[in-house]
Amino acid sequence: MKIRSVLSAAVLAVATTFASTQTLAQETFTLRLAETWGPNFPIFGDTTKRMAELAEEMSDGRLRIRIDSANKHKAPLGVFDMVKAGQYDMGHSASYYWKGKVPETLFFTSMPFGMTAIEQYAWFYHGDGMDLMQEVYEPHNMLSFPGGNTGVQMGGWFRKEIKSLEDLQGLKMRIPGFAGEVFAEVGVSPTNIPPGELYTALERNTIDAVEWVGPALDLRLGFQQIADYYYTGWHEPATELQFLVNKNTWDKLPADLQAILKTAMRVSAYDMLVHSQHANADAWANIKEEHPNVQIKQFPKDVFQAMYKANEKLLKEAAEGNEQAARIIESQEEYLNKTRAYSDISTRAYLNTMAEVE
Amino acid sequence: MKIRSVLSAAVLAVATTFASTQTLAQETFTLRLAETWGPNFPIFGDTTKRMAELAEEMSDGRLRIRIDSANKHKAPLGVFDMVKAGQYDMGHSASYYWKGKVPETLFFTSMPFGMTAIEQYAWFYHGDGMDLMQEVYEPHNMLSFPGGNTGVQMGGWFRKEIKSLEDLQGLKMRIPGFAGEVFAEVGVSPTNIPPGELYTALERNTIDAVEWVGPALDLRLGFQQIADYYYTGWHEPATELQFLVNKNTWDKLPADLQAILKTAMRVSAYDMLVHSQHANADAWANIKEEHPNVQIKQFPKDVFQAMYKANEKLLKEAAEGNEQAARIIESQEEYLNKTRAYSDISTRAYLNTMAEVE
Repeated sequence: MKIRSVLSAAVLAVATTFASTQTLAQETFTLRLAETWGPNFPIFGDTTKRMAELAEEMSDGRLRIRIDSANKHKAPLGVFDMVKAGQYDMGHSASYYWKGKVPETLFFTSMPFGMTAIEQYAWFYHGDGMDLMQEVYEPHNMLSFPGGNTGVQMGGWFRKEIKSLEDLQGLKMRIPGFAGEVFAEVGVSPTNIPPGELYTALERNTIDAVEWVGPALDLRLGFQQIADYYYTGWHEPATELQFLVNKNTWDKLPADLQAILKTAMRVSAYDMLVHSQHANADAWANIKEEHPNVQIKQFPKDVFQAMYKANEKLLKEAAEGNEQAARIIESQEEYLNKTRAYSDISTRAYLNTMAEVE
Repeated sequence: MKIRSVLSAAVLAVATTFASTQTLAQETFTLRLAETWGPNFPIFGDTTKRMAELAEEMSDGRLRIRIDSANKHKAPLGVFDMVKAGQYDMGHSASYYWKGKVPETLFFTSMPFGMTAIEQYAWFYHGDGMDLMQEVYEPHNMLSFPGGNTGVQMGGWFRKEIKSLEDLQGLKMRIPGFAGEVFAEVGVSPTNIPPGELYTALERNTIDAVEWVGPALDLRLGFQQIADYYYTGWHEPATELQFLVNKNTWDKLPADLQAILKTAMRVSAYDMLVHSQHANADAWANIKEEHPNVQIKQFPKDVFQAMYKANEKLLKEAAEGNEQAARIIESQEEYLNKTRAYSDISTRAYLNTMAEVE
């Protein structure tokens, strides 16, 4: 063989490899994510940051996610529309915020008297949850994934003790969404007030009670200084946040980066549940010393019973004439019944046993 | 510039890129993992498979994990030694299996009257758990990570009802490990019997009771056909399996593959908790129709109280003269007290409320 031919063959081989290397080197993606929360919002915002860091580490920098807080994009409740339109590639928010636009999105955050976090993850990943959620988001050109759980949310801060259904009549309470509708059915006047004004509203008796999240976030707002009764939860037993991904963005990603993104979202969602448990316990640890006025209360049985019936009535109404909502509600109810029968003989029995021993 | 110079420069540029491409292309790792379980062991084995699949997908095939079940390596309880020696790169097992070799490994699986799964993950990831575990495994040239949780394990199958401490005296029960020692303190004769012989041993009264895992795995072994009383759990409220990684293997991996491996282990550990919830609920769903003989029981309060005291005594003994064990026990007790105070007002209160409404 002539020297020249050898050289050509070598150059050709090198060039081919070069081309594929170039392709690899160019496969770098920077996705823009809009979150509903303000900058450095505890726990919720940490989840988004953690997801982005993991994606970048695992992809060796090929997948970067740039997070814009609500202060930047100015549209905390516009995340759905912005990701749908492709103005942002991703969002971090909560599905029930979109129920005014798409009623069926309500069911993927947490339902009153519904599943706990692990039960609900089991519904998402082993029941029909993920398929049903995707069915709801597909027409809007988006994928939706679990985005982090708060655990059982507390039932709220009350300035007066609730001893019976009577005490709820005309009571003005900050409680949004479907739980507000349930409360309305039993006589409460639910209102929604921006977070920044909640403390003053409660202090000046503009409202009589306020529901927020749990100890870690509630105590920062100072409710314990002006309300003595902290009620246990029923209305959002497992508030799951949401990652949204624009479908066109998703389709552009190679399979390995899709797997990396999906896993980063999944693990940081679980991590938020664990982080919430830690932060809530931490915030609650010194309550007796620091705020001896605060008493933990459960609503009386007749109140729970009335709210439970009201919830059933509202779900029935939501299912009427809405085949998709009906299927989602049915799937959740069936799954809840099955999974709770087991939770009762495992987690509940154990926690009750432990509360008995000294 | 002469044509020749241009060509040389181009070839040089291509060659340089080629070299770095070669390096990239060579960065493919196949790790060998030994698991304690037999082939296709439900839930536990699914966790290892899922972890391996995720690692391969996310790394685009650069990180492969070849799993050998116990049928292959023939040393189900040799996983610690094999990974330590580098005979295997990784292991999937449970930390408390190594307490005969390294007493302090006992504390990283689940402790009687200890934390639930989410509480324990919070201790690992936000408390001192991961640091303490690494301190214990470091001298053995290994990294240890959470490897999947079973949730609250059931208290076992009994052929006679336990109405008082008296009924436990001389009772022969299959219950291994630290929980067996606790049972021994209150009069039980704990024995260990290979899984394959458990059913026959119980049927022929060689043993009077058997503890295994939970509905999903227990019902497969058929205990419900020969024992009527299924007791709720106290001894392993959150059995966490374990991934082991040989330190030399770990150090050889580039940072992105370390991140991928770490995340694949972390997410599949969480996933196992969710899978366990699903599979247990599923197995339990038809128990009333299929096995109406089975009754769920809780040990009487005096039995729990005696076991609780026995557990405290044994922990005190374990801490004596072992500074490391003492620190781990103290860390767990402090964390449990804090985290449980919050679980009581959130998860426990909610599950009890739900059990009341109709």
